[in-house]
Amino acid sequence: MSALTSMGRKASIQPDRLWADLMSTARFGAFGETGMRRLALSEEDRQVRDWFVGECRALGCTIDIDRIGNIFATYPGRNANLAPIAMGSHLDTQPAGGRFDGILGVLAGVELLRALHDAQIPPAHPITVIVWTNEEGSRFAPAMMGSGVYCGAHKLETVAATCDKSGVSVAQALDAIGYAGDREPGFMPFSAYLELHIEQGPVLEAENIEIGIVEAVQGVCWLDIKVPGVEAHAGGRPMTMREDALIAASKIVLAVETVASRHAPGVGTVGYISAGPNSRNVIPGSVSLEVDLRHPTDAGLDALETELIAEVRRVSPGAEIRRVWLKPPVSFDPRIVDVVAARTEALGYSARRMVSGAGHDAAHVAGLAPSAMIFIPSYLGLSHNVREYSSPEQCAKGATVLLDAVLDLDERLLADTCGH
Amino acid sequence: MSALTSMGRKASIQPDRLWADLMSTARFGAFGETGMRRLALSEEDRQVRDWFVGECRALGCTIDIDRIGNIFATYPGRNANLAPIAMGSHLDTQPAGGRFDGILGVLAGVELLRALHDAQIPPAHPITVIVWTNEEGSRFAPAMMGSGVYCGAHKLETVAATCDKSGVSVAQALDAIGYAGDREPGFMPFSAYLELHIEQGPVLEAENIEIGIVEAVQGVCWLDIKVPGVEAHAGGRPMTMREDALIAASKIVLAVETVASRHAPGVGTVGYISAGPNSRNVIPGSVSLEVDLRHPTDAGLDALETELIAEVRRVSPGAEIRRVWLKPPVSFDPRIVDVVAARTEALGYSARRMVSGAGHDAAHVAGLAPSAMIFIPSYLGLSHNVREYSSPEQCAKGATVLLDAVLDLDERLLADTCGH
Repeated sequence: MSALTSMGRKASIQPDRLWADLMSTARFGAFGETGMRRLALSEEDRQVRDWFVGECRALGCTIDIDRIGNIFATYPGRNANLAPIAMGSHLDTQPAGGRFDGILGVLAGVELLRALHDAQIPPAHPITVIVWTNEEGSRFAPAMMGSGVYCGAHKLETVAATCDKSGVSVAQALDAIGYAGDREPGFMPFSAYLELHIEQGPVLEAENIEIGIVEAVQGVCWLDIKVPGVEAHAGGRPMTMREDALIAASKIVLAVETVASRHAPGVGTVGYISAGPNSRNVIPGSVSLEVDLRHPTDAGLDALETELIAEVRRVSPGAEIRRVWLKPPVSFDPRIVDVVAARTEALGYSARRMVSGAGHDAAHVAGLAPSAMIFIPSYLGLSHNVREYSSPEQCAKGATVLLDAVLDLDERLLADTCGH
Repeated sequence: MSALTSMGRKASIQPDRLWADLMSTARFGAFGETGMRRLALSEEDRQVRDWFVGECRALGCTIDIDRIGNIFATYPGRNANLAPIAMGSHLDTQPAGGRFDGILGVLAGVELLRALHDAQIPPAHPITVIVWTNEEGSRFAPAMMGSGVYCGAHKLETVAATCDKSGVSVAQALDAIGYAGDREPGFMPFSAYLELHIEQGPVLEAENIEIGIVEAVQGVCWLDIKVPGVEAHAGGRPMTMREDALIAASKIVLAVETVASRHAPGVGTVGYISAGPNSRNVIPGSVSLEVDLRHPTDAGLDALETELIAEVRRVSPGAEIRRVWLKPPVSFDPRIVDVVAARTEALGYSARRMVSGAGHDAAHVAGLAPSAMIFIPSYLGLSHNVREYSSPEQCAKGATVLLDAVLDLDERLLADTCGH
């Protein structure tokens, strides 16, 4: 499958080999038929990291590990002075996640290195495949921790001291699995960065499109809303004399939907709700909501937040609203995006340009190096779900676009450097 | 305070003594400043039961305990062949309850016995004060367990085998605290039954009325509703392609309010909500709601249920709806209600007739014997709440109405029996 010649030889992705890696490495953290529980810096995470390091070493890569546990496997180029062309993603999963989210991007990188190795093509640039630590943020907050530290969004010391629910710190967990490296985060510059990922949304599948050319990552705003009420016996209080926190909270949930729909392609979700005392025959005295707002533009994200807050104030003047996270939208490098689009077109794959709804390590890396992302379809758009699925063909097409884009960039960026 | 002469002597409630009992027995299960945690058949329940038995024995009562642990303290009447005039309530509380719900009805009974004893008035009928087992249903379901078994609504064997969350059965808990009695439930007939209780609602306080003359107890219908959705990543899915279970559930919460408001004085509450997977950045794939519907008439309760179910079907055709409990409305005996009203008027207290929103042991007893209830105001209408409060004066007025109604019934029912 695939082909791009470099110096007259062909490197190509082997779909079966990539699929076999996806299926066999799923043993590290598998549960049920297709579920994955591979929390960041857990024993299962160590196992898959060891596998990755072993495979890459066997292909002739050098391995670097930084102080937050990010792994960099670098395949030598003809010119060791050029900053590597990098790609990567993550190997950790949600507590009840699937076999593709993040994992595809890393294993496609391994397959790409194998393709180069098989074809005996020495690229001009070193080629680095990166495993970013703790993208999911399920065990340790925040999400995208490793790339965030690497790119200067978070302080290493703060993040290292962050504890999971059982009181184990990131620093302790890194030590425990042997991945507390000695490289300073940010030690390696990249000529370019690419990340292949499943869409985690339904658009490509619904439109029957093979490849998503990702131009940007939506900005994210997280709000915590605490809605007050007056707790009382459900039988004894007329409807007209109630202050039911769940009634107000329900209006806020619907307001999130209304406001987000008004600002498409923005989205808004209340994923978490908890009522107190949460007993059938007691009128709820308090409700907590956790809101996730996303928009591809700064102005759009700001409008979502402002309009929602106004609506909350109207429905429940006593509500507490706290913004717990704001990550502005990220635009990828137009030139890298265009290279991905050109290679996809040359391969004859159907494609559309799109915005990533989910956050990704690439959104951090985009601040350091020219970056872009490649999406493939997700079955039913499912992700963070044990039923997450992309077919062997879909995975292979994504890996092929990745390979061809890397080889194309290898030539173009060399030409830039050498003044052609 | 108060007065009704019987055979020329006066029996009267002593407000300070009643209040002292309320405050001092609160030590059995107190937490915080005013909180009570006295779960049914717990060690704290045993302590307060032992106190009750000791006080009543000291007043010359005989004590009977039935097989579900209900306690009957009977003060002798002039005619032992007459069925007792009974009153009672419960001494167990919610896990975070207050010092008055149920407790007032029992302690006012004790104070009434003291008043009779002090005045050396031998009533015609034996006077029985009852402690019903497990009215709250917090530790063992269902609520109103003791009175329900006594009145034939539940089978003793089934109820005795019911376990709490740690696997202890009602039978084991009765044994453990020494209150597994030998009397068969239903062993004692009553000439009449009265229950004094706090309103557990805001109406009397809001209208500045001293006594509620309770004519009926609302019927209750409990529905469990499970709302389906499609779990998905909150970032990747456009608003138009979602099946968000919490959006549908929020519409159902608001429908409960709309339907109940249309059928005042009916009420409807969603006291419990739980979303899955309940994670901020995952669109909820399922939501469970627990609904409590109440209405004073059968037709009204039926309309509430029917209209709500239609609305749920409209909002979420795939929702599962399960009726988990139905307790029809109960009307109290008009003659007993009239006696309570007449004594209240004679005392010069402001009063209104009303329907109880909450369920009470009296609703079961009404099937066995002519019954009625007396309400006093609740501070802010709060109940099942550590801030539950009624003043010493309010408690004493309720107890005085109870005493005068018992003495009035003692004469009237004797006249009936003897054909005057």
